[in-house]
Amino acid sequence: MREESIGRIAKDFLGHEGFQLTEWGGGNLNYLYRVDSTKESYILKYAPPYIRCLGEGYPLSSERLRYEILGLKAANETIPEFAPKLFYVAKEGVVMEYLEGFKLLRQAFIQGEKIPHLAEHLAEMLARFLVKNSFWALNEGERKKLLEQSENSLMRRLSEDYIFTFPFMEHPTNQKNPTSAPSVREIHQDKEWLGAILWLKSRFSTAKEGLLHGDLHTGSLMIKGEQIKMIDFEFSFVGPLSFDLGAILANWLIAYRTHKERGEVGGYSQWLREEMEEFIERFKEQFEFWAGEHGAPQIGIKGYLEALLIEAWGMAGVKIARRILGAAGVEDITSLESPLKEEVERRLLVLSREMTLRAALGIIPIQKGGREAYSWLF
Amino acid sequence: MREESIGRIAKDFLGHEGFQLTEWGGGNLNYLYRVDSTKESYILKYAPPYIRCLGEGYPLSSERLRYEILGLKAANETIPEFAPKLFYVAKEGVVMEYLEGFKLLRQAFIQGEKIPHLAEHLAEMLARFLVKNSFWALNEGERKKLLEQSENSLMRRLSEDYIFTFPFMEHPTNQKNPTSAPSVREIHQDKEWLGAILWLKSRFSTAKEGLLHGDLHTGSLMIKGEQIKMIDFEFSFVGPLSFDLGAILANWLIAYRTHKERGEVGGYSQWLREEMEEFIERFKEQFEFWAGEHGAPQIGIKGYLEALLIEAWGMAGVKIARRILGAAGVEDITSLESPLKEEVERRLLVLSREMTLRAALGIIPIQKGGREAYSWLF
Repeated sequence: MREESIGRIAKDFLGHEGFQLTEWGGGNLNYLYRVDSTKESYILKYAPPYIRCLGEGYPLSSERLRYEILGLKAANETIPEFAPKLFYVAKEGVVMEYLEGFKLLRQAFIQGEKIPHLAEHLAEMLARFLVKNSFWALNEGERKKLLEQSENSLMRRLSEDYIFTFPFMEHPTNQKNPTSAPSVREIHQDKEWLGAILWLKSRFSTAKEGLLHGDLHTGSLMIKGEQIKMIDFEFSFVGPLSFDLGAILANWLIAYRTHKERGEVGGYSQWLREEMEEFIERFKEQFEFWAGEHGAPQIGIKGYLEALLIEAWGMAGVKIARRILGAAGVEDITSLESPLKEEVERRLLVLSREMTLRAALGIIPIQKGGREAYSWLF
Repeated sequence: MREESIGRIAKDFLGHEGFQLTEWGGGNLNYLYRVDSTKESYILKYAPPYIRCLGEGYPLSSERLRYEILGLKAANETIPEFAPKLFYVAKEGVVMEYLEGFKLLRQAFIQGEKIPHLAEHLAEMLARFLVKNSFWALNEGERKKLLEQSENSLMRRLSEDYIFTFPFMEHPTNQKNPTSAPSVREIHQDKEWLGAILWLKSRFSTAKEGLLHGDLHTGSLMIKGEQIKMIDFEFSFVGPLSFDLGAILANWLIAYRTHKERGEVGGYSQWLREEMEEFIERFKEQFEFWAGEHGAPQIGIKGYLEALLIEAWGMAGVKIARRILGAAGVEDITSLESPLKEEVERRLLVLSREMTLRAALGIIPIQKGGREAYSWLF
């Protein structure tokens, strides 16, 4: 049944039979296949009308594919060099570029690989994507249309629950043995912290600033040499620009902290830190440039960007905490052994709290601009 | 032509002839008439298809009436004791309750009138209105519907321009002789301040949190004894909850500062300050209560409210500055004589800058909770 649907999509796309299908991994929800025709290879993403990892007994609307397409199309239009090409759209699947020889950025980080021009390329990719698909570049009519198309209430609800709610309360899906200090019990009673998270959650749910990737962790970015590609757009929706930016910062800090605590090898944690600081500076430069192209006022844009960064640190704080407390762990941390794992978790949770409080309540002292502003993170 | 349309609306509403029409003031855009039938009086608001104060040569869509109705209906449903009753809706006009003996809160403030239970009633009015018409109380379908109905791009654009943009640049509609320190030239070069305003403007334009009144200054509130009514909903749209709250705080601070500088009469500025502090505390209590009724988490709501207040101070800062620099002055200030006027303007502008920077960039020290947190305002 599934093979049949997938075969039909491949045939419709190629216009002929005579191709090979190979299952190619995929996530909890969808199937990925490699399609080899005589000349070329492609990736076919198939979204079955159920949750892949749970089986046909758990129906899930294929509408998630609509948002995958929306986000991928937007990326193909605004940052074509940073996204796989989208070739073909069918009802339950899409065919896109096969990214030969690429690997996940998360794997590269875990393996301690220094990626040339990473900060520069990521900054350009994200700043251009956020500006081009947001109120900075879209006129009123385009914004309205985008808003109508990008509801994605199903996936958005998943994020609300699994990022902003469940990790910070008693919930059966949470990880069983996270770090001991601050204890989970303390966190559940921490009114300031939970207040800051509630504020950031309200931003996530109601700020309609621009189209986001929506799940921009290091497992949604692929690299090969100095090339970088954004993949997996099924969570894309119109939300706060700080959310995608925060997701990248969160995962960067997690990688930094795990390497730092594991003990320095070849200056890798130092490299991660320097690249992250450079990413932030270059992101601001790129954002200013592209927003300027679309008429942003020259005076004020730097201040706006400082405010955006503050909110992004808050979002990053929530995303760090949810990786430790909530359902979805990340290999950077889960691959660590005790007691190193607990030490990394403890330090990241303290940092997470500071970042969210700073963003929502302003009660953590904030230094002004420049690189020294980030020293408290490291 | 106009009289004819108005007469027809009155007749259609009453179901008979035999009534008296008296012009009853009105604003720059619309006409107000009092309709006296044999038993009762009503107010008829007529929105001509042009800008009233400029004449028929300046067409303006009557669609503004749609938002007047949307906001007034929402108020009739969620805070009926705080809004004039809406009786009848026609294409170019509405008939509503005649608020006999009421006066504008702005007039009461200027005249130094101590209004019984003002803080208590305003806090309940605003908190209930904001909770009941926002994501706190509405489900996903209701929110979507509200968002579709409440575009109000015309009036929203006016606010963007005349509140967040023109007052902070060279613009022919700005006031000619505002205060000298900080000088207008300094303000136009103040990157931090303009950055904070740009950030708050992006909130105004993109935060779809709930239905707002949209123009909640002391001229949109009427009082009689301890009764209070919200009027003039033509700017209503779905935006950030901080905007309505900030508007009230801005006008309260303007009233406070003018009385304070004019010299104390009967402890009036002290009364204004105490009422404002009480308003803030009661607003938080009321908001917590009504949000709790709609399932807001008990832990965290206080922190959320602190964050909402911080943003509201920012919005208040922008609104104070625009009253001094921009097109729309307020009688509280314009009625002052030199050099008192300049002193009030100067002090309010310094305050305005601090409030916006604090909200957007967090670079003004922030004290934690409680009444002492507001001492820097006074």
